[in-house]
Amino acid sequence: MNLWFTEKHTKNAGFSIKVDRQIYSGRSDFQRIDIFESPEFGRFLTIDGYMMLTEKDEFIYHEMIVHVPMCVNPEAKRILVIGGGDGGTVRELLRYKSVERIDLVEIDEMVVEACREHLPQTAACLADSRIRFFFEDGLRFIRQPEDEYDLILVDSTDPFGPGEGLFTKEFYGNCFKALHEDGIMVNQHESPFYKDDAYAMQRAHKRIVESFPISRVYQAHIPTYPSGHWLFGFASKKRAPIEGVDWQRWKRLGIKTRYYNTKLHIGAFALPTYVEEMLRDVER
Amino acid sequence: MNLWFTEKHTKNAGFSIKVDRQIYSGRSDFQRIDIFESPEFGRFLTIDGYMMLTEKDEFIYHEMIVHVPMCVNPEAKRILVIGGGDGGTVRELLRYKSVERIDLVEIDEMVVEACREHLPQTAACLADSRIRFFFEDGLRFIRQPEDEYDLILVDSTDPFGPGEGLFTKEFYGNCFKALHEDGIMVNQHESPFYKDDAYAMQRAHKRIVESFPISRVYQAHIPTYPSGHWLFGFASKKRAPIEGVDWQRWKRLGIKTRYYNTKLHIGAFALPTYVEEMLRDVER
Repeated sequence: MNLWFTEKHTKNAGFSIKVDRQIYSGRSDFQRIDIFESPEFGRFLTIDGYMMLTEKDEFIYHEMIVHVPMCVNPEAKRILVIGGGDGGTVRELLRYKSVERIDLVEIDEMVVEACREHLPQTAACLADSRIRFFFEDGLRFIRQPEDEYDLILVDSTDPFGPGEGLFTKEFYGNCFKALHEDGIMVNQHESPFYKDDAYAMQRAHKRIVESFPISRVYQAHIPTYPSGHWLFGFASKKRAPIEGVDWQRWKRLGIKTRYYNTKLHIGAFALPTYVEEMLRDVER
Repeated sequence: MNLWFTEKHTKNAGFSIKVDRQIYSGRSDFQRIDIFESPEFGRFLTIDGYMMLTEKDEFIYHEMIVHVPMCVNPEAKRILVIGGGDGGTVRELLRYKSVERIDLVEIDEMVVEACREHLPQTAACLADSRIRFFFEDGLRFIRQPEDEYDLILVDSTDPFGPGEGLFTKEFYGNCFKALHEDGIMVNQHESPFYKDDAYAMQRAHKRIVESFPISRVYQAHIPTYPSGHWLFGFASKKRAPIEGVDWQRWKRLGIKTRYYNTKLHIGAFALPTYVEEMLRDVER
């Protein structure tokens, strides 16, 4: 059996994973959803042929989207997750006893169903009673809430297809409104390395800078995402991502992580010069 | 024309690059050398089918192997480069006026010839009069010098084939002997992500720890290397890689870089928890 999944990262570069077998394939009103079993990466989820997560390296993305803002505000109680139907982001959030409620807004219920059945590593946590599910478009959902959340995590797909609206100025402005006065928003920010991804990253960053007084970018090594160099956007009304953070307080929570640590938290905001320049270009 | 170069990163994962045409192919006494032209990455060099560098992302590897130790000791005068026949490491070193002499020990003269002809971006610098060439095995060369160098950069291929001896205890012990009393050695340290690479990384680290009083590891995002998460080993007799470094002094040199900066220098030593654990396992 010589079955391979290939994702084109650009027209001229691709990453391939050997596949043992396909476990699930579905087509919802929004997108195509597939789950495979592979010898190197365990199970992995693709949407419209793009890699969303693998069991082997999903810890990196999910730890970095959650523990960075949760270390900045470890008392966050009410959290909004937009996208993230695979459950990985929610799993990391639920490790904080302070978290009282997570509103999970996932446009596609079929993603949640498929993951609950076939990706328990991330989705088993979705049975937790602290979660409220909203199967609707995040762009619509976010128009309503005001001064409601401590933290918003935008765990979206890429900025085309159903995820497109989650990279607009209207969306970020509404996130600002939905947050408490010391609220934080983190979103996945694409990669700086390939031209089209970098352009999407710059566009998203520009719109966030227009909406939030504090807007910074941090990075992680995610081997199964294009280029392996992935960015996150940290935006907030008041709290800085490093200055004034009580590192000991997070450490005392005793949350065991495999990628994240407080030293790496600081290091992750030290970006390569070419990325700093790309961000500065749109901050002007 | 639908021509692709594929490198298997493990038996079960691979990275593919679309190729316009092959520019060079040679077989030396040591290895097979190929150079291709590609639309995404410009020209790229492979040895025995493994990616050595691409014109698009070589700046990351070469800046990180050179500017980290040169910022720690910007007065380094006598430098030994082992491997690095493509010239990229030498190019970055030559940007320091303080550098008086670079001994380049490359086992395979054919690599230098091919790169000088077809990869001027890295190899044009090899005409500089500060360079002395030694076309011999680094493992043999390093047995002679004593108290001779301020800095040794081990810019080797992977720890199998001709590069194998450059990951042994004998080699690191001789590097220690060849360095001045405040000397620094940096070597490429493989990736922590895939099991076989991580094992090679741990083995190299263990041997360096046995040979040098100060031994630390730092990381960079190199998209065309396996997993994109690449490590370097920083070993020295006295100088710490961060503590006591005069950052302003490096900045005053006015060296323009695209990846490296002094903030990133510090951040690069903040490793993910799973990598810290791998290193601690062999430091005991």
